[in-house]
Amino acid sequence: MRARLDIAGPGRGEPSRRPIGVFDSGVGGLTVLHDLLVRLPEENFLYLGDTARFPYGERSATELERFALQMAEELLRRGAKLLVVACNAATSAALPALRRRMMETTLGVDVLGVVRPEALQAVAATRTGRIGLLATPTTVASGSYEEAVGALDPHVTLHPVACATLAGIIQEGRQFDEQAVGTVREACAPLREARVDTVILGCTHYPLIRLMLQRLLGPEVRLISAGGALARQVEHALGGRGLRVAREGEGGGGGEGEYRFLCTGEVESFCELGTRFLQMPLGEVERVELVDVRRPAREDAL
Amino acid sequence: MRARLDIAGPGRGEPSRRPIGVFDSGVGGLTVLHDLLVRLPEENFLYLGDTARFPYGERSATELERFALQMAEELLRRGAKLLVVACNAATSAALPALRRRMMETTLGVDVLGVVRPEALQAVAATRTGRIGLLATPTTVASGSYEEAVGALDPHVTLHPVACATLAGIIQEGRQFDEQAVGTVREACAPLREARVDTVILGCTHYPLIRLMLQRLLGPEVRLISAGGALARQVEHALGGRGLRVAREGEGGGGGEGEYRFLCTGEVESFCELGTRFLQMPLGEVERVELVDVRRPAREDAL
Repeated sequence: MRARLDIAGPGRGEPSRRPIGVFDSGVGGLTVLHDLLVRLPEENFLYLGDTARFPYGERSATELERFALQMAEELLRRGAKLLVVACNAATSAALPALRRRMMETTLGVDVLGVVRPEALQAVAATRTGRIGLLATPTTVASGSYEEAVGALDPHVTLHPVACATLAGIIQEGRQFDEQAVGTVREACAPLREARVDTVILGCTHYPLIRLMLQRLLGPEVRLISAGGALARQVEHALGGRGLRVAREGEGGGGGEGEYRFLCTGEVESFCELGTRFLQMPLGEVERVELVDVRRPAREDAL
Repeated sequence: MRARLDIAGPGRGEPSRRPIGVFDSGVGGLTVLHDLLVRLPEENFLYLGDTARFPYGERSATELERFALQMAEELLRRGAKLLVVACNAATSAALPALRRRMMETTLGVDVLGVVRPEALQAVAATRTGRIGLLATPTTVASGSYEEAVGALDPHVTLHPVACATLAGIIQEGRQFDEQAVGTVREACAPLREARVDTVILGCTHYPLIRLMLQRLLGPEVRLISAGGALARQVEHALGGRGLRVAREGEGGGGGEGEYRFLCTGEVESFCELGTRFLQMPLGEVERVELVDVRRPAREDAL
């Protein structure tokens, strides 16, 4: 399972062997990568965490757009065949801009985010029509989930809860102490009150406390993360462009793909935190510098 | 969620408020307790880990029977209304003896193990009729899963793999390193070879590497642990005796029950390991000394 990808640029080797690019503000998106690794074991992955500028929670939408475009560019330069924005805040702020940019510059690269697959699963799962959302304040304020859920079913009510401190508590590793339980209990109280039957985990850190959430919300409540629905969407998008790695029984070897990591900040802490978030070994991690996609000099020249 | 159980003996207070007793060779059974806590949040639990005599893997069936009877007695003395043997080796070796003993001595206490709920789920899940089993050598050698699966469907084939070192690797916390992946990969190879579509996680430590197993076995393979099926069995057993705590909508308060821990070994390491296995805070832990159920002196007197 160690990273042995050796792709220097787009188009090198067989197109389907190019990696799926996944990016995030830091290590949180590794819970999304995890689901993708489990469900698409034959694919290669390249993950980029913008740890130098983490957290994204307090940044403006304009800034998040700029960062997301930089990361997308870096992954494309390294041959990514599809991009996944594995961050709820970045998806909420930057997905339309990313898609516009891909249409301007690159043929054949889809960009998928985490909001829509979660909204889709939640609307499919709810029986009462009352869906809860746990997310960071930035994501809640963006209204992206209301919009996604409302577009699927206008009769469903979304009950959002903005959790300012929860992602930090989980990232620090305090997810199993009494103080963490207190914070989680407080976040769950309005959702119990609203008698929701489905709750979207709208931050990539939250799947790490899925079982605690299940206990505090009650055993009948369905917890939704991007996971399976996102993996299926990735599979369909790749299939539509003939970019899926063949599986056993489809003429493929049925082996495991490889995965590799990039981060913008300190490598050692990325490895340490990353192992806990990915729940698999990380292999080597490369530090990268991100640059703006459209440099003023180049824009002047155009 | 902190333990505030104050039950000194059977029959104290409302019978349904008595705890469900769960016991194991050490901390592994906490993954079983975890599923029970999540699925039966309104119930009270009392967990006993025989950490002083861990591991059970190399012990004889006679010895495991004796230990299991001691633990059952301790939990009954503290008011347990139902017993769960949360250890695959102890279930395989001691369940019949435990049930005989309960019939001799106590009215109204059911004893449930982890083997049968797992066999049941696996037989219900398989479509090819080829089921894999990952378990410790003691459990594999006991033949308990062959027996349980065969009784449910004689046309199903069980492919057992005895893993001598895996539980230790997980307990030491090395589950996300390259060596651990190597061990897991080796254990999974014969199951991939046999093209099983369902795999029983026949050791309470293995759910902690569920996602790694899923990746190495392939995304279509169903992984089975006692979890949901055991919780339903507990619920039915308690319901049949009128011992279930009422839920919200059944006249109950819909609150959370309490849980409390006992161990025979060192308290500090139990707390440390236990938090990782339970993935929730433990609260305080009490050290207990276990004694034989039938002391020779008392047997002479009979």
